[in-house]
Amino acid sequence: MGLRPMREILRKKRNGLHLTSAELHHFVAAVTDQSASDEQVGAMLMAIFLNGLVPSETVELTRAMLDSGDQLDWGADHLRVVDKHSTGGVGDKISLPLAPALAANGLLVPMISGRGLGHTGGTLDKLESIPGYRVRLASDEIHSVVRQVGCVICGQTDRIAPADRRLYSIRDVTETVDSIPLITGSILSKKAAAGLSALILDVKVGRGAFMTDREAGQELAESLVQVGKGLGMRTSAILTEMDHPIGRTIGNSLEIHETIECLKGAGNPDLVDLVAALGGELLALTGGASDCESGADAIRRTLTDGTALDRFRQMVEAVGGDPHVIDSPDELLPSSPLSSVIECPDDGYLSSIDSLDLAWIALDLGAGRKQKADTVDPAVGIEVLSSRGASLQRGQPLFRVHHRHELSDSLRERLLDTVVVSPENIAATSRIITTIR
Amino acid sequence: MGLRPMREILRKKRNGLHLTSAELHHFVAAVTDQSASDEQVGAMLMAIFLNGLVPSETVELTRAMLDSGDQLDWGADHLRVVDKHSTGGVGDKISLPLAPALAANGLLVPMISGRGLGHTGGTLDKLESIPGYRVRLASDEIHSVVRQVGCVICGQTDRIAPADRRLYSIRDVTETVDSIPLITGSILSKKAAAGLSALILDVKVGRGAFMTDREAGQELAESLVQVGKGLGMRTSAILTEMDHPIGRTIGNSLEIHETIECLKGAGNPDLVDLVAALGGELLALTGGASDCESGADAIRRTLTDGTALDRFRQMVEAVGGDPHVIDSPDELLPSSPLSSVIECPDDGYLSSIDSLDLAWIALDLGAGRKQKADTVDPAVGIEVLSSRGASLQRGQPLFRVHHRHELSDSLRERLLDTVVVSPENIAATSRIITTIR
Repeated sequence: MGLRPMREILRKKRNGLHLTSAELHHFVAAVTDQSASDEQVGAMLMAIFLNGLVPSETVELTRAMLDSGDQLDWGADHLRVVDKHSTGGVGDKISLPLAPALAANGLLVPMISGRGLGHTGGTLDKLESIPGYRVRLASDEIHSVVRQVGCVICGQTDRIAPADRRLYSIRDVTETVDSIPLITGSILSKKAAAGLSALILDVKVGRGAFMTDREAGQELAESLVQVGKGLGMRTSAILTEMDHPIGRTIGNSLEIHETIECLKGAGNPDLVDLVAALGGELLALTGGASDCESGADAIRRTLTDGTALDRFRQMVEAVGGDPHVIDSPDELLPSSPLSSVIECPDDGYLSSIDSLDLAWIALDLGAGRKQKADTVDPAVGIEVLSSRGASLQRGQPLFRVHHRHELSDSLRERLLDTVVVSPENIAATSRIITTIR
Repeated sequence: MGLRPMREILRKKRNGLHLTSAELHHFVAAVTDQSASDEQVGAMLMAIFLNGLVPSETVELTRAMLDSGDQLDWGADHLRVVDKHSTGGVGDKISLPLAPALAANGLLVPMISGRGLGHTGGTLDKLESIPGYRVRLASDEIHSVVRQVGCVICGQTDRIAPADRRLYSIRDVTETVDSIPLITGSILSKKAAAGLSALILDVKVGRGAFMTDREAGQELAESLVQVGKGLGMRTSAILTEMDHPIGRTIGNSLEIHETIECLKGAGNPDLVDLVAALGGELLALTGGASDCESGADAIRRTLTDGTALDRFRQMVEAVGGDPHVIDSPDELLPSSPLSSVIECPDDGYLSSIDSLDLAWIALDLGAGRKQKADTVDPAVGIEVLSSRGASLQRGQPLFRVHHRHELSDSLRERLLDTVVVSPENIAATSRIITTIR
């Protein structure tokens, strides 16, 4: 009768009833120890997709997923341990300058990141452009690097939230990925496993985002904040617009270039604004700043005074990477054999750049993965040579494409199709839509 | 990308959209050839459970399930080929006298039946009480026995509706059994595989039924009739009350006893009424009677003139059973070593007998299966020695229990708890609630 409790749980969720903490923990335990069969997990995920979970159920589901694996313990330093999670964007290299900037402000940042799939890039893929950088670290190494440097960006170990791995692989083939409670559980169980005191979420909406719909993004952000708090973390979310790419590069080694530039005080304002806003919120959440504005100012300072750059250099070195990339990125980072400039076809103002289409072009160049098993070309990608709202003249450079093979005419056309050049200028708008606390 | 169509289908049903015939056939093909994974089938069944299928989708699902296996072909005799299906009851031996009575009325009855599980008994288990009776027949043997005798009652071959076997085993563990479109598909795909021209359904509701709720039973009956017609079968359903047990016995060899008694013209009126109603409807559907009442009369005649008994004898002999059981059931059918009479505790009228509680007691005696792998004791069971509405005196026999081990006091008490003896008599009601055509 080992399956009975699982069937009772299935029946309750099928009937739209609320599950108890014990039932959700039983479900997750049965997922982890394989006593729930694949068909039961598939059916349960569909029942959750269609009938939902209330926030208290999502908290317990997440807690159970978290408890299915190892958790980092920071002892007395717990209050300084923070992280950021983004739902994935185009040109989204925010973690790379943010982690060292937070460390430079006295916080501890065990940032466990992922790889790219589909149109969104992955922080680990970007870091692997740095010669020698090891993303696979054991828990004790994560501990020691964070204690020594203040931050580390590395991959997930097999021992973090193992329930999520099985749940995710089943969600992936059963069309149950786009469920707010399930997304919430998946994100927060992995993040909370790092033993965080505070977490900031960058929930992206629009063309290049995982969630295109703003209302759905808002709903996810609210769920993440509510459940994050339910797990005992100080949690905020910033809803950000992902219609146009972040900063000025898309592609792995290009984004490391841009990160170093940002840490040297010469960051693209779009990128710097987001790093400052996210970091400022974390400083405010942990008491390291009186409010998010002064927190943002503190972050900006460490991006210009060299202290964040210094942390980045130490982090790279601590995990086996070559710290000289910081001084000589052009020589040490992978570069593509070919590059081409795409010119503006008309006079006018650059009113939009379609991040999704641009991401698919970068993917076609080899910068990302269409399937999980694909390998990533670190050297290829796209530099955006103008920015939204800029006044352009026909023939002015729009993109520099870094490519390994000849650029086809159709790819050139697709690149031009990503921009709209208008006779009238657009109103400048912030990428930050709202903050959910 | 072999899984893509399955994922599109999952997504559509998840979103509450209608599936096309091609999509439903793809789903069933993917179930049969295992290209749909267990988790995908589990998720799809839950999506169907929660979002439903419209009747035209259920027709196509059922047709696809039917097409997943072999179908019997009766050529020019097709119009005479009929069957009955019951959703399962307590003491439900109706098939046993009905099949030979239909044969005696000139119809062909390839009756493919099942085994008991839980509180409901199985026709095959009952027939196996007859020494030598083989329930596993190949398709050509089903054909030849039906052509020779007019009827056969046997088990399902592996080649009939194989999609249903996988779907059923997954429904069973994912709490998606109680879905009207899925029940409809499961029942009708197997029945239609016998190449029927007409089908009568006995949909039971009440305490001892699979569906306790009358409205749900009515909904199932309507779905079965609509989808049966959609598959090209003349189809009716009779909604019958299953609060009290059918006839006067519960238990395998006891029910064969009662069948022989019925075929000898001495059937319990409750049993005979149901057999006549169901058979009469089939005679009316196939033109063998002008209406269901005259059809019922024709059935009653063959139960008393020995012609149905003769067909039963021939059927038993044709599949290797000992036909002498008909003449000497007491000697040749298995009997239990012990029997006990339970007496009425009060004076009054027998106002109800709880079929469900009685079925569980029979199960505890060994007459049925709690788990699929359990073996059935053919000899044990319960005779009901009175009937609803009867005037009883304290000490008068209520039940004769046929048992293998000592009867415990608690079992005696449970038996007494199944009856209500009231000072006032109840109004006699028919077991037949309504007919859906």
